[in-house]
Amino acid sequence: MMQYGMFVLIFCAVIFLPADAQQNEEYLDIGEQLLHKGLVEEGAYTILDKLLEVGPRFAGTPQNAAAVELTHQMLNDIGLDNVWLEPVTVPRWVRSEIEEAKIAGSQRIGEERLTIAALGGSIATPEQGITAPVVEVHSFDELEELGDSVEGKIVFFNRPMDRRLVNTFAAYSGAVNQRSRGAAEAAKFGAQGVLVRSLTLRIDDYPHTGGMRYQDGVPKIPAASISTKGAELLSETLKYEEVVDVYMRFTPEMRDSVQTYNVIGEITGSQYPDDIILIGAHLDSWDITPGAHDDGAGVAQVIQGIKLLHELELRPKRTIRCVLFANEEFGISGGFAYAGSEKRYDEEHLVAIETDRGGFLPLGFTVDNEDEVVEYFQRYTYLFEPLGMHQIIQGFGGVDIIPLREQGTIAMGLLPDSQRYFDLHHSAKDTLETVNPRELELGAVAIALFAYVLAEDGLPRFIHEEYLSN
Amino acid sequence: MMQYGMFVLIFCAVIFLPADAQQNEEYLDIGEQLLHKGLVEEGAYTILDKLLEVGPRFAGTPQNAAAVELTHQMLNDIGLDNVWLEPVTVPRWVRSEIEEAKIAGSQRIGEERLTIAALGGSIATPEQGITAPVVEVHSFDELEELGDSVEGKIVFFNRPMDRRLVNTFAAYSGAVNQRSRGAAEAAKFGAQGVLVRSLTLRIDDYPHTGGMRYQDGVPKIPAASISTKGAELLSETLKYEEVVDVYMRFTPEMRDSVQTYNVIGEITGSQYPDDIILIGAHLDSWDITPGAHDDGAGVAQVIQGIKLLHELELRPKRTIRCVLFANEEFGISGGFAYAGSEKRYDEEHLVAIETDRGGFLPLGFTVDNEDEVVEYFQRYTYLFEPLGMHQIIQGFGGVDIIPLREQGTIAMGLLPDSQRYFDLHHSAKDTLETVNPRELELGAVAIALFAYVLAEDGLPRFIHEEYLSN
Repeated sequence: MMQYGMFVLIFCAVIFLPADAQQNEEYLDIGEQLLHKGLVEEGAYTILDKLLEVGPRFAGTPQNAAAVELTHQMLNDIGLDNVWLEPVTVPRWVRSEIEEAKIAGSQRIGEERLTIAALGGSIATPEQGITAPVVEVHSFDELEELGDSVEGKIVFFNRPMDRRLVNTFAAYSGAVNQRSRGAAEAAKFGAQGVLVRSLTLRIDDYPHTGGMRYQDGVPKIPAASISTKGAELLSETLKYEEVVDVYMRFTPEMRDSVQTYNVIGEITGSQYPDDIILIGAHLDSWDITPGAHDDGAGVAQVIQGIKLLHELELRPKRTIRCVLFANEEFGISGGFAYAGSEKRYDEEHLVAIETDRGGFLPLGFTVDNEDEVVEYFQRYTYLFEPLGMHQIIQGFGGVDIIPLREQGTIAMGLLPDSQRYFDLHHSAKDTLETVNPRELELGAVAIALFAYVLAEDGLPRFIHEEYLSN
Repeated sequence: MMQYGMFVLIFCAVIFLPADAQQNEEYLDIGEQLLHKGLVEEGAYTILDKLLEVGPRFAGTPQNAAAVELTHQMLNDIGLDNVWLEPVTVPRWVRSEIEEAKIAGSQRIGEERLTIAALGGSIATPEQGITAPVVEVHSFDELEELGDSVEGKIVFFNRPMDRRLVNTFAAYSGAVNQRSRGAAEAAKFGAQGVLVRSLTLRIDDYPHTGGMRYQDGVPKIPAASISTKGAELLSETLKYEEVVDVYMRFTPEMRDSVQTYNVIGEITGSQYPDDIILIGAHLDSWDITPGAHDDGAGVAQVIQGIKLLHELELRPKRTIRCVLFANEEFGISGGFAYAGSEKRYDEEHLVAIETDRGGFLPLGFTVDNEDEVVEYFQRYTYLFEPLGMHQIIQGFGGVDIIPLREQGTIAMGLLPDSQRYFDLHHSAKDTLETVNPRELELGAVAIALFAYVLAEDGLPRFIHEEYLSN
């Protein structure tokens, strides 16, 4: 029986090889057309350049509204089949113009300015600021051991990202809880405020902001990121002196929520228009940065990707939809609104591919799913070899498509070189000059190609129905 | 007989698998030690930073001599088994302080400054410069068709690098003959001088210099690179006007040759000290650039590579030798001197690995040899997967190790991301700021690891003797 089965398998392989081979050739040919057009035009970079002219695109800001208008116009100008906006309500947190901190009470070095940026969502310090002794910790365990001795103090979370990891996203994951939960954990023991080492592998004077959240039933205390240079200085000072006072003052405020939009455009499928392959990125950035890589690059790549497909007059069987999600950074508002919209009732989202890891050299794709599903998608590896991409591996897809993934959509992510990303992530260093037009474009081409091929092929029953029945 | 042979092969495989697996584990462990130490210290970047302080390291300059002294000291400071200098005589070509050009005779746009840089080895224009009509060509065929009609004119070679190619080195290869041979070809038809479009994929105002050579029996005429922005302007102007005069003036001179050195250091093999695995890069740069990527990055990687091995007290069976070659850019002087030295008589160079493609994200290695040899080295791919490198492929090794290759050494090259390299190659844009410390370090680690493993394993008879008997 075993042997018979093997013969059947071999037989099938022989039968279907010519048809597959022909289709493989066709897909490779389409890949080459996309690649050549993309690399000659470098359109993603042009889009990014225009997008960055509006300024930081933080949720709820006028600049964010301008980015909605601009990208909506860009999708319209392409001449896609459908272009529309879907409303999203986003919180409106406004950073104060003055954010300052200093080592105020060191006998050894006197006063030294520290560069900080309030974390997104933080409450304000009192108008006169906080001046309090600093306690350095590297983990929540260490904080717990200190217990009530941190009462009235500023807790300084100073655990660096682990430099030894080749994948810097893994290093980020290992350090980010200080930023997201540090204030809540420190407040449990009566701390007055927190400073969190910036999540970067560089030692410089740029603070890297990011989201944080308070915990119900725990007092809210102000929280800011401190530049790594400042963190090193503060840590060094604490080695020599038992009591070091820090002064810090920042007065952000939470205002009324604001309506913005997910920006959407699509090439309608010729046979199954309600079956969707989504390519997405988030339109917002943090407020202290141009957000060139995070996620201007992603926005530029998906707009350019669908533009390339449109201009080559490629209309697959299923719909390819480009979605620019609102407010990923400060609440995933667009991702939840999109997946939860009643417009989704008649639609089937087979695959969602997000690009939100920077516009660096693309190395492949991640598939956020179990082994056999990842292996299924690895059949497409050959398509990306000519682009210099060799990996289709298991891994996280993207934040904006988590709500879709929960509904059964296969979540995938573009996987670029990660070495440079956290040098600039959520900081003023995330500028256009750090983007290479060709690296950016290769990502756009790869996304367009994968979206097209998946929109032609659909998904086999073992993947699709299994996940719909979850 | 065939079947018997197959059984023997399978039998051997089974016998040796446990031992191999153990060795694989040992090598992976060494790789991890190198990687962790490297990424924590980022020593290659520190070395590069110091190296760039001496200024452009063009052959024969005092800065080049300072770089010899500095790197010699660095190798001594590591505490290697042997460190020494080997003399190399290099030509001394000196660029003039004033290099200028302009569109001098356009009715449409009047005078417009053009940014140029004399090509390395060019003769001077007359003291008053050249003013002559410009003829644009894109190939030597086109030049030949024009024939004697270019007499007395400036030939403007304007064939761009092919943007469609993912591998930018292939695009460079397809355009570089204009630079290297353009002057000789144009002189055959009586041209007065040549301007060559800078070999870069960016449109900007930085000229990219590089080597050129004259041809015996053909008059020498002055040759300069022109920035791509200037090339585009000139080409555009020629679309509207039949006769456009260009003025250009640069007065470099060839002086007496100078003695410099190949800088060499090694970890002596414990069993076969005369069998060498060479890791190399070139110490010189062009004169108008810091040469951070070309080839400061390579120099930093091989110094850091051998430093990591030394500090981890790894002494393989065969010798690992680090060579910083003199004057690659303007004659491969160091490469020829090294391979031709009588010191080589008692030595056997098994493999030479060069790093001279920039300090960008390493993707793998090239092996400059036939298929079966490349396949042999692919057995080591598993070692580099943890570093995010997946490719050991056929391809050029490096310019400095061509003379060794001719003598039977296996030539290999570190293969990094090529997308950004020609943005800055041979231009003032090749600065420290464009180097990422982690990308640079990953290359150093990869070279150290490959050198160590090859120095332990040596080469199988089918590779080594075949090539010695060539």
